[in-house]
Amino acid sequence: MNTIGKILTLTTFGESHGPAMGGVLDGMPAGVTIDLDELQRFVDRRRTGQTAGSSTRDEKDRVEVLSGIWQGKTLGSPIGFIVRNTDARSADYEEIARCYRPNHADYTWEAKYGIRDPRGGGRASARETVARVVAGGIVLQALSKLGITVEAAVCPCRDAKSCVSPEEMERVVAEGDTLGGIVECVIKGVPVGLGEPLFGKLHAQLAAAMMSIPSVHGFEYGDGFDMATKRGREVLDVFEKREDGTIGTVTNHSGGIQGGISNGEDIVMRIAFKPVPTLMRPVPTIDREGNPVTLHPCGRHDACVLHRALPIVESMAALVILDNYLIKKTNEL
Amino acid sequence: MNTIGKILTLTTFGESHGPAMGGVLDGMPAGVTIDLDELQRFVDRRRTGQTAGSSTRDEKDRVEVLSGIWQGKTLGSPIGFIVRNTDARSADYEEIARCYRPNHADYTWEAKYGIRDPRGGGRASARETVARVVAGGIVLQALSKLGITVEAAVCPCRDAKSCVSPEEMERVVAEGDTLGGIVECVIKGVPVGLGEPLFGKLHAQLAAAMMSIPSVHGFEYGDGFDMATKRGREVLDVFEKREDGTIGTVTNHSGGIQGGISNGEDIVMRIAFKPVPTLMRPVPTIDREGNPVTLHPCGRHDACVLHRALPIVESMAALVILDNYLIKKTNEL
Amino acid sequence: MNTIGKILTLTTFGESHGPAMGGVLDGMPAGVTIDLDELQRFVDRRRTGQTAGSSTRDEKDRVEVLSGIWQGKTLGSPIGFIVRNTDARSADYEEIARCYRPNHADYTWEAKYGIRDPRGGGRASARETVARVVAGGIVLQALSKLGITVEAAVCPCRDAKSCVSPEEMERVVAEGDTLGGIVECVIKGVPVGLGEPLFGKLHAQLAAAMMSIPSVHGFEYGDGFDMATKRGREVLDVFEKREDGTIGTVTNHSGGIQGGISNGEDIVMRIAFKPVPTLMRPVPTIDREGNPVTLHPCGRHDACVLHRALPIVESMAALVILDNYLIKKTNEL
Amino acid sequence: MNTIGKILTLTTFGESHGPAMGGVLDGMPAGVTIDLDELQRFVDRRRTGQTAGSSTRDEKDRVEVLSGIWQGKTLGSPIGFIVRNTDARSADYEEIARCYRPNHADYTWEAKYGIRDPRGGGRASARETVARVVAGGIVLQALSKLGITVEAAVCPCRDAKSCVSPEEMERVVAEGDTLGGIVECVIKGVPVGLGEPLFGKLHAQLAAAMMSIPSVHGFEYGDGFDMATKRGREVLDVFEKREDGTIGTVTNHSGGIQGGISNGEDIVMRIAFKPVPTLMRPVPTIDREGNPVTLHPCGRHDACVLHRALPIVESMAALVILDNYLIKKTNEL
Repeated sequence: MNTIGKILTLTTFGESHGPAMGGVLDGMPAGVTIDLDELQRFVDRRRTGQTAGSSTRDEKDRVEVLSGIWQGKTLGSPIGFIVRNTDARSADYEEIARCYRPNHADYTWEAKYGIRDPRGGGRASARETVARVVAGGIVLQALSKLGITVEAAVCPCRDAKSCVSPEEMERVVAEGDTLGGIVECVIKGVPVGLGEPLFGKLHAQLAAAMMSIPSVHGFEYGDGFDMATKRGREVLDVFEKREDGTIGTVTNHSGGIQGGISNGEDIVMRIAFKPVPTLMRPVPTIDREGNPVTLHPCGRHDACVLHRALPIVESMAALVILDNYLIKKTNEL
Repeated sequence: MNTIGKILTLTTFGESHGPAMGGVLDGMPAGVTIDLDELQRFVDRRRTGQTAGSSTRDEKDRVEVLSGIWQGKTLGSPIGFIVRNTDARSADYEEIARCYRPNHADYTWEAKYGIRDPRGGGRASARETVARVVAGGIVLQALSKLGITVEAAVCPCRDAKSCVSPEEMERVVAEGDTLGGIVECVIKGVPVGLGEPLFGKLHAQLAAAMMSIPSVHGFEYGDGFDMATKRGREVLDVFEKREDGTIGTVTNHSGGIQGGISNGEDIVMRIAFKPVPTLMRPVPTIDREGNPVTLHPCGRHDACVLHRALPIVESMAALVILDNYLIKKTNEL
Repeated sequence: MNTIGKILTLTTFGESHGPAMGGVLDGMPAGVTIDLDELQRFVDRRRTGQTAGSSTRDEKDRVEVLSGIWQGKTLGSPIGFIVRNTDARSADYEEIARCYRPNHADYTWEAKYGIRDPRGGGRASARETVARVVAGGIVLQALSKLGITVEAAVCPCRDAKSCVSPEEMERVVAEGDTLGGIVECVIKGVPVGLGEPLFGKLHAQLAAAMMSIPSVHGFEYGDGFDMATKRGREVLDVFEKREDGTIGTVTNHSGGIQGGISNGEDIVMRIAFKPVPTLMRPVPTIDREGNPVTLHPCGRHDACVLHRALPIVESMAALVILDNYLIKKTNEL
Repeated sequence: MNTIGKILTLTTFGESHGPAMGGVLDGMPAGVTIDLDELQRFVDRRRTGQTAGSSTRDEKDRVEVLSGIWQGKTLGSPIGFIVRNTDARSADYEEIARCYRPNHADYTWEAKYGIRDPRGGGRASARETVARVVAGGIVLQALSKLGITVEAAVCPCRDAKSCVSPEEMERVVAEGDTLGGIVECVIKGVPVGLGEPLFGKLHAQLAAAMMSIPSVHGFEYGDGFDMATKRGREVLDVFEKREDGTIGTVTNHSGGIQGGISNGEDIVMRIAFKPVPTLMRPVPTIDREGNPVTLHPCGRHDACVLHRALPIVESMAALVILDNYLIKKTNEL
């Protein structure tokens, strides 16, 4: 349930205000050089306090690799790692234990498990994504050795609110309100032939990976939803033989994937994030007995998480691509 | 690779012009009454020739259940089934063997496996979905006993081209062109607490299932991509205690899922289909050596598949929901 | 639940007296030449009526491959297949529906599922193994191309009763009694490095595969249980560099596997089968209400299944070896 | 690869002389009371220095639970834990880096991964079992709430050498030699109906779990290998209705499992361990270039590990039983 991947798997654990977040990255090929300083810098990209609208917590998030890497190289054994939770003020969260925050997992988690760790959202906190980024940072280093790069950016498409002016952002923060937005992720250098043609289509795996990121409400690749408003002639990616002898397509409406399998073109996808659910203003809700209560802002929360989401998106993309790269090796005897 | 699900799994097989399509639905609870006539009628909904713009083939698609159901009840053992391929004129497809059709899986499949069955697209044909619909039809009958219903409809949202007038459709067909569109699927009666909070979020599983359907390019649930253009205040689904004592939300921007877990409201999602890739007009492409060729229309193909896609969407939704319903049972000792 | 393997998976279905047994072999590499006549001959080895003590049914068991193989080569897509059940006289089994046969799965199956197909044992019949042998026969052809051979034989070790004289066997049959025995299986040509060092040790996977064959009660590899009665010095497999430059061991107490990973020596294992549970003489038991009844012999059953078990053992070994051969490819970038 | 289980899964990581061993126990039902002191005492049973013939290291092995348990109860989220490696003298192991120890995984691991952590055997060290015991200790507490107990004991059966007199053991140690032996494990209180009838037979899962423990070379359940030397009549477990109205068997040759499914009787199995592979005397071997060398004893090692193996065996049994207990819940709608 807390594992993703087939050959390359990531299993994560950790509650927001427990001792540590962590994970196990299993199935990494052996002998791959990993630069732990570079890894730490990648994880730092996810930290708060780096852009306007993000919270002022300093989580530090020092990565502690416990196994699987020795003398700078992967051993082929599982890479266990933890990131200690250092700045947890549980007292802030006592009110949450008694009521359900709207648009959070409080109610559904309690209905599912009959018990809930209210401190900072517990397991349902977006803090869990730190484990994804640690694993993703390792995998991205492996991909770069294969000439594959992954880059996510906040996308000004569809009039998404995330790309607002500093003035607008200040007003949002002042009102205790929040924003969402769209992230576009492009993967370059993917060889032809990755992805499984039926249920494991490459874009289906990417969709599942992206939709598993907290707050994501939509996924599309290539021309995505716009495909629905076009004629077949308009979106044909005609093949051409290039000067270097390789085959490619003149256009890329397909977003680098055809029939669920990569075709060598850039893989392009967009991911829609809902506005941060925790408002910094009073919100009406109910307590566990169903009585109406007003929830007052507690904890410290970002007004927009989009910039923090970029390394998360890149990490999930990287996990899917390397997993499929490895599976591809088994297609012939 | 050809299996989906965790406790309730579907494994499918079959090439478009081979002897049969088929599948194994494993993990179905025992003792569930299944009406095979009703199943056949559901599978028939996927057949061609029922709306304007769909092809004139009569595939028949008679379901043959080989195991797992006895005296009208499931046994708890795997339900194996086949649907014979009866109307396969392989000769039509010889040209395809020599060149790559744009926006199809010809090129990518060959790059992946080094070999390709060109007859009707082989395994990459949308004909594979018949196995999904057989399994889905069985699962839908089980869900109905739990009070859960699944209904997909062609969605006129976003100016999708699929919902065109008969006149417009005639013009599309006349031009040998094709259309895509958007399907909206609503699941009612889902109990609170289904879905896994991390990688197995209910909407992540639904996204993977839907994106695995041929031609799908986008997925969203609840307010979906529109979430990215709204403020946090605008999409808050405030809780209320209802007269019957249950807890619900006043609005449903979240689409019935919060924190990856169902909250008891209707689950609402939209799936974007690209236009049918096979045009009924000459199309420029290249052959296996990279030489430019013109591909002339062959076979018989739909100009729009959206109506045929409805039972497929419902089937994939049903598989995900029942799987998670069963997993939910393991959350307590 | 009815699937085995990780990259190369086999899913089977079928009740003994239903329309057909079948399976889906998924993950087979593409482009492998498969001789279907050779496959049918391999499956025929499992048939009855070929040695003294085996039953007189003629099951025929004609293999019908439905997908995944085209023009004599694997396509990389799942290989679906069925074997029709032709000789099912369900009337023979009405008594079984009302009582529980000792040492069979009647009672446990009914307790688990609340419903049971009593015809010939339903899914719990050893007839299910025909699907394993079809898949195994395909995989063995692939292994032979890699220089890997699998051979099982009835083993006269430990005074096993199976290797009895024809006179003794006649006496067993006359008394309506049955025998078990031990099968030894040797796999030659396995490259060094197959198997996963932790939970997926090669011998752990082989054990699970063999213990899943009906009637198996014990598994050992290398010196097996005798290891427990020896000193460390006695079982040391000392390394040597051979004339061809390869490294090997002088002895093979380890049975070709060290630390869960193949070391290039012959893999040697032994599998213990219990005596056939169905006696051809009256047996005391109880009915579903717990009343004592006498069960009279019904159906036709073998007095010893060991010779029929050989291709089953070889098939399960083959599935495990090729799966691990494919996984091995993913150990480096 | 480093994960076992289906609904209840354990993923482990850690090299013998790295910073820590650890694991993630996922799928534990929520709301189960766990006594961490009791857990620590269970893990201590695995420690060295407690019986004659075991090494003098004091590993301490303090369990640090990082997630999934809060205020003494499971949350339903993954239980992450680590055990620090405190007493690692890597210098002892430099010789091992240059040569292959017989009956160890040095050679096979290097062949598989092309790289090897020689310090204490790295991932191939039996120290990895500490993570199994932590998880097993948690699961055993859950099982006890269900009335299920698991108990392993050194078995004097088959003249196993492990059960030797103190004098004999002293002689073995003096000679730098080692012993193996047989462990018998009995599980009481298992409800009827656990286990999957095909590939996931309860004894097949138990076999895989036990065979994954380092040094295990054989597994049997019920009458095991002796079954092969008996007639069908001799091993019939005749049913009876007991005074409390339940159904049971008069004898238990089947070892509590029939048709792969538990029948409510005690589950009885025996596991054969090879002698400890590391002798405390000079041993001939080869180096990585294939030159003959003599390996001198280094590190500190047990002459017999059987007593230390008991909690490991109990842990693996517990994991399998609870996993199947949870799966059983999904057998009906």
